[in-house]
Amino acid sequence: MRLELPVEGRKRVVILEVEPSVDAGRRPAKAEVGLPIAVRARLVADGHDLLQAWCRWEFPDGRRGEPGPLAPADNDWWNRTQTWTESGLYHFQVGGAVDAFGSWRHGVDALYQAGTLTTVDIAVGAMMLETVLPRLDRSGRDRLRPWIRRLSDPDLERAARAALDPVLASLAAGLPARFPTESDWYPVQVDPLRARFSAWYECFPRSTSTDPTRSGTFRDLQDRLPYIAGLGFDVLYLPPIHPIGVAERKGPDNTLHAGPGDPGSPWAIGSAAGGHTAVHPELGTLEDFRRLLGAARGQGLDIAMDIAFQCAPDHPWVTAHPEWFKKRPDGHIQYAENPPKRYQDIYPFDFECEAWPALWQALYDVVRYWAAIGVRWFRVDNPHTKPIGFWEWLIAGIRSEFPEVLFLAEAFTKPTLMYELAKAGFSQSYTYFTWRNTGEELRRYVEELTQPPVCTFLRPNFFVNTPDILPVSLQTGDRGVFLERLVLAATLSPTYGIYGPAFELMEHAVLNAGGEEYLHSEKYQIRHWDWDSPESLAPEIRRLNQVRREHPALVWSGSLRFHAADSRELLVYSKRSPEGDDTILIVVSLDPPYTVAGFVHLDMAALGLDPDARFWVHDLMSGDRYIWTGPDNYVELRAGRFPAHVFEVVHLPRGRLPDERDFDPVR
Amino acid sequence: MRLELPVEGRKRVVILEVEPSVDAGRRPAKAEVGLPIAVRARLVADGHDLLQAWCRWEFPDGRRGEPGPLAPADNDWWNRTQTWTESGLYHFQVGGAVDAFGSWRHGVDALYQAGTLTTVDIAVGAMMLETVLPRLDRSGRDRLRPWIRRLSDPDLERAARAALDPVLASLAAGLPARFPTESDWYPVQVDPLRARFSAWYECFPRSTSTDPTRSGTFRDLQDRLPYIAGLGFDVLYLPPIHPIGVAERKGPDNTLHAGPGDPGSPWAIGSAAGGHTAVHPELGTLEDFRRLLGAARGQGLDIAMDIAFQCAPDHPWVTAHPEWFKKRPDGHIQYAENPPKRYQDIYPFDFECEAWPALWQALYDVVRYWAAIGVRWFRVDNPHTKPIGFWEWLIAGIRSEFPEVLFLAEAFTKPTLMYELAKAGFSQSYTYFTWRNTGEELRRYVEELTQPPVCTFLRPNFFVNTPDILPVSLQTGDRGVFLERLVLAATLSPTYGIYGPAFELMEHAVLNAGGEEYLHSEKYQIRHWDWDSPESLAPEIRRLNQVRREHPALVWSGSLRFHAADSRELLVYSKRSPEGDDTILIVVSLDPPYTVAGFVHLDMAALGLDPDARFWVHDLMSGDRYIWTGPDNYVELRAGRFPAHVFEVVHLPRGRLPDERDFDPVR
Repeated sequence: MRLELPVEGRKRVVILEVEPSVDAGRRPAKAEVGLPIAVRARLVADGHDLLQAWCRWEFPDGRRGEPGPLAPADNDWWNRTQTWTESGLYHFQVGGAVDAFGSWRHGVDALYQAGTLTTVDIAVGAMMLETVLPRLDRSGRDRLRPWIRRLSDPDLERAARAALDPVLASLAAGLPARFPTESDWYPVQVDPLRARFSAWYECFPRSTSTDPTRSGTFRDLQDRLPYIAGLGFDVLYLPPIHPIGVAERKGPDNTLHAGPGDPGSPWAIGSAAGGHTAVHPELGTLEDFRRLLGAARGQGLDIAMDIAFQCAPDHPWVTAHPEWFKKRPDGHIQYAENPPKRYQDIYPFDFECEAWPALWQALYDVVRYWAAIGVRWFRVDNPHTKPIGFWEWLIAGIRSEFPEVLFLAEAFTKPTLMYELAKAGFSQSYTYFTWRNTGEELRRYVEELTQPPVCTFLRPNFFVNTPDILPVSLQTGDRGVFLERLVLAATLSPTYGIYGPAFELMEHAVLNAGGEEYLHSEKYQIRHWDWDSPESLAPEIRRLNQVRREHPALVWSGSLRFHAADSRELLVYSKRSPEGDDTILIVVSLDPPYTVAGFVHLDMAALGLDPDARFWVHDLMSGDRYIWTGPDNYVELRAGRFPAHVFEVVHLPRGRLPDERDFDPVR
Repeated sequence: MRLELPVEGRKRVVILEVEPSVDAGRRPAKAEVGLPIAVRARLVADGHDLLQAWCRWEFPDGRRGEPGPLAPADNDWWNRTQTWTESGLYHFQVGGAVDAFGSWRHGVDALYQAGTLTTVDIAVGAMMLETVLPRLDRSGRDRLRPWIRRLSDPDLERAARAALDPVLASLAAGLPARFPTESDWYPVQVDPLRARFSAWYECFPRSTSTDPTRSGTFRDLQDRLPYIAGLGFDVLYLPPIHPIGVAERKGPDNTLHAGPGDPGSPWAIGSAAGGHTAVHPELGTLEDFRRLLGAARGQGLDIAMDIAFQCAPDHPWVTAHPEWFKKRPDGHIQYAENPPKRYQDIYPFDFECEAWPALWQALYDVVRYWAAIGVRWFRVDNPHTKPIGFWEWLIAGIRSEFPEVLFLAEAFTKPTLMYELAKAGFSQSYTYFTWRNTGEELRRYVEELTQPPVCTFLRPNFFVNTPDILPVSLQTGDRGVFLERLVLAATLSPTYGIYGPAFELMEHAVLNAGGEEYLHSEKYQIRHWDWDSPESLAPEIRRLNQVRREHPALVWSGSLRFHAADSRELLVYSKRSPEGDDTILIVVSLDPPYTVAGFVHLDMAALGLDPDARFWVHDLMSGDRYIWTGPDNYVELRAGRFPAHVFEVVHLPRGRLPDERDFDPVR
């Protein structure tokens, strides 16, 4: 029997487990401008020959770069890191082949060491180079020929010297590979750095008025921008700014019926004043909103808009497009429910309706409308209650029109679904951070988020609180606990956020004991805050955001390492900048109302230090400095003081005394 | 902008991590006739609706079966096991959809419990069933209509009873799913059970003569068949039976030059008498070999033939096809080498030669030749020194012509390469078993082999020794250690083997201290064994193979569980039959020269027992019986006795005294 043969049966290398990859390359891995992308793969071939491996990149414009070599590591892994300076959709391919020349050279070396090398063994290399000649251009041939002559030298010693000459080795490394194997092309979405690294501030525009008798407006909020930007935030996220439904409107503290003056929930979208592309009249005009966008941009702040795809009963679409909603047998439109709970003030869209194509397009056009006005961040409310495929389609479409636009998924649901939404294209995701409190909980969860596969497709955003979540830990109102959670969020995750001014003013009254709802929640009523309270955490927040901006170690989590400590109430971790020139070591008290002390046991290599190195740790929050030696060092975090050390680690060269230079590293 | 929409945007379910799958379904997973195949997948959809999932199979003849339901488990996993009675290449597909009816029923139940159910809520279900009517045949419609009427009953209690009626639920479960998502089709190669479960005996035909003055022949071996079959083996594996090269022939104990009477190594294949399709004249004729095959088959033994794709310098192909070999610059053919070692008696094929298509075809024709004669097992020598793609092509081709033919890979190399060869199609693989001695080493290694992903593509064959490997543990010649290794191999792995009669006669003299080569190895000289020695381990081997055949728990490793023991020198593990009606518990001494004793701590659930159950353990080797209660029981394995308990576990119903029935379970 004559069987069909492969086109090229001499491809001996198999390429396995290419990374970064999401669902075997069906969806893009996430990366950022300026941060290293770690390309890895396992290569295996028959026999004992050495291999060579490389990686090629295709740029967003379709051009392809030159292959760059991968370096071998343990267990058949090969690595290369790559950094890009432009955002866009890249693709990479891993290639590999048997390194015939290298294998020969390795054999010659072994025979030489054993004293059994012959000139014939060396001439094998000359023969090998000769077969390559026809595939080279003239200058290539001219470079190779003298080596072929030297390898054919009848003097064994001279020929051996030529064979083992590193110049020849590097020349050979540039020769075309024989029978290369190439992997599929894997997509990598390179986003602006702000997709990975940003500090978020959420606030309700209607609570920004200085006049306690009226609703705040976009103009009032505009006056607050210097405060927010001054705290060092990058993104200002606003709950929905659209007209609020009147029918079935909720009263203060989520009571069933609103009184005449009650403003309702901004998430009950739509009234006679308009729907998802309108602006709530009490906040101002579209023009006011545009002005706010521009003013924020001028102060380095992006506005993040809330996308909540649901309707109040008086949303114009309810009458214009009843076909987009489910109808009950009594003719009424189906309100939201999670039996036995019923939410009569909210109509969800029916994504299984016959008219789904028109519905999808209408929702797309909402996002498109605001992106066209200049919104660059969309924080999507409950994306997990709309089809995953819908988001994949919407985000890809919007980003093809507006590449700079990013999306944050507010999905508090099971991990499988959160992860699918991230894979579907969300740039960032809310997490379970508010419910992770012990050292063990935090370490496990953060390691899950920062290691493959999750880190390949999900960028966490650690909010310390939200209008929906007043975490149990904050309900005592203890200043130290607020600061502990702030430090954890701001340093464990490159992106974090606070819902303010509730956070910095340490608002902590809960609606129902055992719950997480704020008392007098801004979701249902207008609040007037004492923004300038002397008790405010603003100074600490400002300093922490400044440290984040000044220290590239905190820009990512690629180098995150947890360290051991004697006390379970101390959480110790470090981060290093991609270049290794900035090292931050953080020690947090997980029980700030009490003094927590004990030895920490550092993984010195993870800090870039020798096991017995002497080094300074410089607390960037307090300004305190300590000289430490080796891995075991004593730490004491006193009750009533700032509950964490945020140390810059400065290595002291042997024999030199420290001076100011050590604390102003040039970057 | 109008974007292209998916054909069906209402498919809300995403299917992930389908198992069993090898390289995301690019290669077949391995399964066996009569053993359960565990199909798993994770399903996720937006929202809070219940899901339904199913699996469809395509049979080797291309027909497709009816979908069977998957059962939900933790963390969005869904499971179903399937068993097939015919071998062949199957495919399966997982499907899933939102269970609209089940979600509604769940909601009705919750509202009913809360006392807030209305007739409108129930009528939603009637409406749902009505939309299904047009997709049903007449009898389907007739079955549904009465339920629609009952759900529309104005009496709330009556309507609720109908809504929650399990008869309606099971009727609804059979309705066509809306907007189903379907996975890719995943291949599963279902092989005969002997691919997973067999006992191998390796021996050299030339050492089977009863006349110490001459080489053994196929006829001599034929006379030994009752002995081998009587020990309970299933496969008799013979080193190469081809003419042995004369040029550069090795002498006894691998000395460089053979004397006139030295027979040479069977792996130095080819001489003037022929090559890979010829029979070594000293063993007999092709006709003798055919007769041996038939006689073996008659005694329940398969002959496994050695495939060693390499040539002695006087192999006919060396002159007929010099283009299949590498030539050195001095005109000589390149011998095998692993610098600085050189093997002048062996010429490897050059798989990178220009004539590779003809070479591949010639090698294919070798296997085809022997398969056509009736050989059903090929044990491939050093497959890892030939391209992986070559084996994938060859095995697929041979098995399409001879579906019953199976291949064993003798690749002692790094795991990545061993695993790729298994994925490429080898039915079984040699392993590192001979080098795993401590309890920790054995547990870790066996767990790696018996859990996904490895168990999906690699079937281990635990040889206790081979002509190349006299393990250090056996070099003392201690009878207990030989038996320990035998029990471990025969019960940790469904397939195991011995190289005999060296094993059962406890041959243990090593060529070089620190090495693993047998002194006076049969590879280079003819041996005459005292097959009937009273010291032989034959009785223990016979009994162990009988236990293996009588106890379906030992047929597979799908239920393997290691148990704790106080002594590190006790290895404790259990296996259960797929149906759970046979449970074997094994306790092995890892230090047989000494008495080993201590408590074992059983995972009772893994044995199918209640935590405090009272049960018999019946040692199938010694015949001893003990009554045990609960997880903690004392074990003592005496020096000089059989170094293991191979217990059958028999549950005692409360209040009944044990009797003989307990030890003859009906199977």
